[in-house]
Amino acid sequence: MKFSLKITISLKKGMLDPEALAIKHALNNLGFDVDSLGTARVFYLDVDESDENSARQKGQEMCDRLLANPVIHSYDIEVSGV
Amino acid sequence: MKFSLKITISLKKGMLDPEALAIKHALNNLGFDVDSLGTARVFYLDVDESDENSARQKGQEMCDRLLANPVIHSYDIEVSGV
Repeated sequence: MKFSLKITISLKKGMLDPEALAIKHALNNLGFDVDSLGTARVFYLDVDESDENSARQKGQEMCDRLLANPVIHSYDIEVSGV
Repeated sequence: MKFSLKITISLKKGMLDPEALAIKHALNNLGFDVDSLGTARVFYLDVDESDENSARQKGQEMCDRLLANPVIHSYDIEVSGV
């Protein structure tokens, strides 16, 4: 059965995010009043698994092995049937 | 009043996403069976506006002027009270 995974990868709390800082400064320079800005990456993918739990587990494995750096990233996985 | 914006920026349908393709190949090489993979960027930020509509409009303005490239990107804005 096909499941859609939405994997959101963000920096752990307290990690410095220079890209977000640069974007925040650019927004401020354009006149937007933004005090804090965070960023995240999202991956949408489909997996073929028997049930929702194993689909989620497959997503976790992908994060641990490739998508996220466990030292600096935290991730969140949303599973939905197709 | 403070509102939280969650701005998701993704490539328009049909746009080539070489990064997603590279990640898909890497996952396949690790033995994961993934046929399609999409990516998006998310920005979380707070704005100080009088109501939800003007908060959303501020987000749209940020996308149009800096965050997104209207030629290749589409964006989605979620507004929530803080």
